[in-house]
Amino acid sequence: MVEQTFQGAVQDELSQVDRHIGEFFAVSGGLVGQVSRHVLATNGKRLRPTLLLLVARRQGRVSETAVLAASVVELIHIATLIHDDSIDRSMLRRGLPTINSIYSDQVSIIMGDFVYSKAFALLVDHGLFAEMRILAQAAHVMSHGEMLQLERKNRLHSTEAEYLEIIDEKTASLFAAACEIGAMARGVDEDGVAAWRRFGREYGRAFQITDDLFDFIGEEAVMGKARGSDIRSGRVTLPLIAALGNASARERARIEEIVMGGGMVDGLWEELVAFIDAKGGVDYCLEQAAHHAREAASIAGDLEVDADSRFALAAVVEQVVRRRR
Amino acid sequence: MVEQTFQGAVQDELSQVDRHIGEFFAVSGGLVGQVSRHVLATNGKRLRPTLLLLVARRQGRVSETAVLAASVVELIHIATLIHDDSIDRSMLRRGLPTINSIYSDQVSIIMGDFVYSKAFALLVDHGLFAEMRILAQAAHVMSHGEMLQLERKNRLHSTEAEYLEIIDEKTASLFAAACEIGAMARGVDEDGVAAWRRFGREYGRAFQITDDLFDFIGEEAVMGKARGSDIRSGRVTLPLIAALGNASARERARIEEIVMGGGMVDGLWEELVAFIDAKGGVDYCLEQAAHHAREAASIAGDLEVDADSRFALAAVVEQVVRRRR
Repeated sequence: MVEQTFQGAVQDELSQVDRHIGEFFAVSGGLVGQVSRHVLATNGKRLRPTLLLLVARRQGRVSETAVLAASVVELIHIATLIHDDSIDRSMLRRGLPTINSIYSDQVSIIMGDFVYSKAFALLVDHGLFAEMRILAQAAHVMSHGEMLQLERKNRLHSTEAEYLEIIDEKTASLFAAACEIGAMARGVDEDGVAAWRRFGREYGRAFQITDDLFDFIGEEAVMGKARGSDIRSGRVTLPLIAALGNASARERARIEEIVMGGGMVDGLWEELVAFIDAKGGVDYCLEQAAHHAREAASIAGDLEVDADSRFALAAVVEQVVRRRR
Repeated sequence: MVEQTFQGAVQDELSQVDRHIGEFFAVSGGLVGQVSRHVLATNGKRLRPTLLLLVARRQGRVSETAVLAASVVELIHIATLIHDDSIDRSMLRRGLPTINSIYSDQVSIIMGDFVYSKAFALLVDHGLFAEMRILAQAAHVMSHGEMLQLERKNRLHSTEAEYLEIIDEKTASLFAAACEIGAMARGVDEDGVAAWRRFGREYGRAFQITDDLFDFIGEEAVMGKARGSDIRSGRVTLPLIAALGNASARERARIEEIVMGGGMVDGLWEELVAFIDAKGGVDYCLEQAAHHAREAASIAGDLEVDADSRFALAAVVEQVVRRRR
C-alpha cells in the first residue's frame, strides 16, 4: 500500500486511534449499533489524524492527548461525511453503500448528530479545551461552507475566488485544525502553531482541488464511488470554472445546456469531460493542486519536526496530487 | 399572556437571551442569513432558558454566565428542532412553515449543524467548560433518543417503559441539563445540583407526555401545527400505548389497521381519537403528566430558591399540564 510510506511513522498511534474509534462505535445495540458497525466498515484513510500525529511527534513520541485529539478529529470528519452523503444523496462511499442509501436520510441526520456530539463530549471529558475551541470553530466554518456550496448550486458563472472560499471552509478548515492541534501537542510556539495551521490549509486546498478534478477523470474503482457526483449535485468546481474561462460564448451555452439538463447520458458526460480537458481545466487543476502542495511543503520545510515525520509529511504532500492516477 | 406569570421574574434576562440569539442569527448574508431570519421569526416560548434563569437567580440577580448559558441551551434546542422537523417531515412549527418545507432537507441538515456548532463554540469562547460537559452529553443523549424513536417506529406493542426511555432521552435530558446549569450558576452544593437536575427531568416528562397527548386532542390554532403528527411519523406514544393496554384483541387489530394504514382520512382519525379517549388513554396521560409535575413541584419545594422564582417555578410546573386547553 502506498499510504504506508507516510503512515508508517505513526502506525502505532494510528492503531490507537482506530481502537478509540472502534470502542466508541462498539457501544450500542439496536439501530445505533447496526449503523455504527456500518460506519466502522467504511474505514477511511485517516488522513487528518495522520497529519495531526506526524506534526505532534517529538523525538519519536506522541502524547496520549494528541492520540485522543486525533481520534476526535476523525470522528468529526465521519459525522460530516454522514451528513454530506445525505445532503448530496450519495449512494456509495469507499465502495460501500452510504447510510442514507441503506437506511434513510433520517437515520443519517441522527447518526451524524450522535457522532458529532460524542466527539465534543470526549474532548470535554478529557479536558481538551484548547482543542475544543479549535474544533467547534472548524465545525462551524465547515457547515457555513456547506451552506455556501448549496447556495451556489448550479451557478455556472461562479468564480475561482468563490470556489476557493467554499473549499477553504468546507475542507481545508478541518485539515488546518488538525495540524494546529498537532503543533500544540508538539509544544511549538505561537508562530509555529500558526505556520502549521497554514500548512494544513494549503494541504487541504491541494486535497480538495485534486478530489474535484478526479470527480471528472478519476478511476471509479480507486475512488470507491461513481464519477460525476459534483455535476449531479449541481456543484460547480474548479475544473469546470477554469474550462469555462477559456470558452467562447457558444461553447458556454452548450455546456450550460448539458449541465443544467442534469442527465449525463448519451455521450453528454464524455462531451463535458472532453470539453474540460480541451479547455485546459484538467491542466489548470493539476497546476493549482501542485501549487498548494508546494506551498505546504515549503511551510513544513521551514519548521522543526522529527526527521521521519519530515520524510512522511513530504510523502503525504507529494501524494495528494498523485493519488488515484 | 399566561406565560408572563412565570417569565416575569426573569423578563430582563430573557430579553438578554433574545438579544444574544438575535445577534448570533444576524451574522450572515446569503442563504444562511435568509434561513436565520426565518429561525428568528419562529420564536419559541424560551422554556428551557426560563427554567435555567429562575433556578439560577440569587437575591434577585442572575450572573452573565447564566444568561449566556441560557442562550446556548436555547440554541441547542433550536438546532435540534431544525433537524427534528426534517426527520419528521413536519410542515409547520409554531404556525410558520418549517425550514425543510420552505427550503429543503439539505438546508435543514446544514443549518442545524451550523447552529449546533456555534452553540458549542460560544461555550468554549466564554470558558464555560462545566456547562459544555453537561450540554455535549445532553446533545448526545438526545440524538440517541431520536434514534430509539426511529427504531421503534410503528411498533404498536411498545411498552410504557420504552416510551419513558425515549422521552427521557430526547426531551427530559435537555430540561435536566438546563436546570443543572441553573443550579450551578446559583452556586448550590452537589446534592442541590443533582436535585435540580431531577426537577428538570420530571418537568420534561410532564411536558412531553402533555405534548404527546395534545397531538391527539389539542387545539391546532394554539399548537401552531396540525394534530396527528406523531401517528403520521409512526411514533407510538403514551395515549395510544395506554389505550391499547385496555383494548380487546379485536379492538387492537382494528387500531393496528388504522395506524399502519397511514391515511387518517374518512373518519379514521376521529375513530382513533375516540378509541384513545374511551379506553382511558387521555385520562391516563393527564394523570401521568400531573404525577410528574407533582414530583417536580415537590423537589423544588424542598430546595432553596428566591421567593419570586419559587412562585414562578410553581406556575411553570402548574402550567405544563394545563397549557393548550
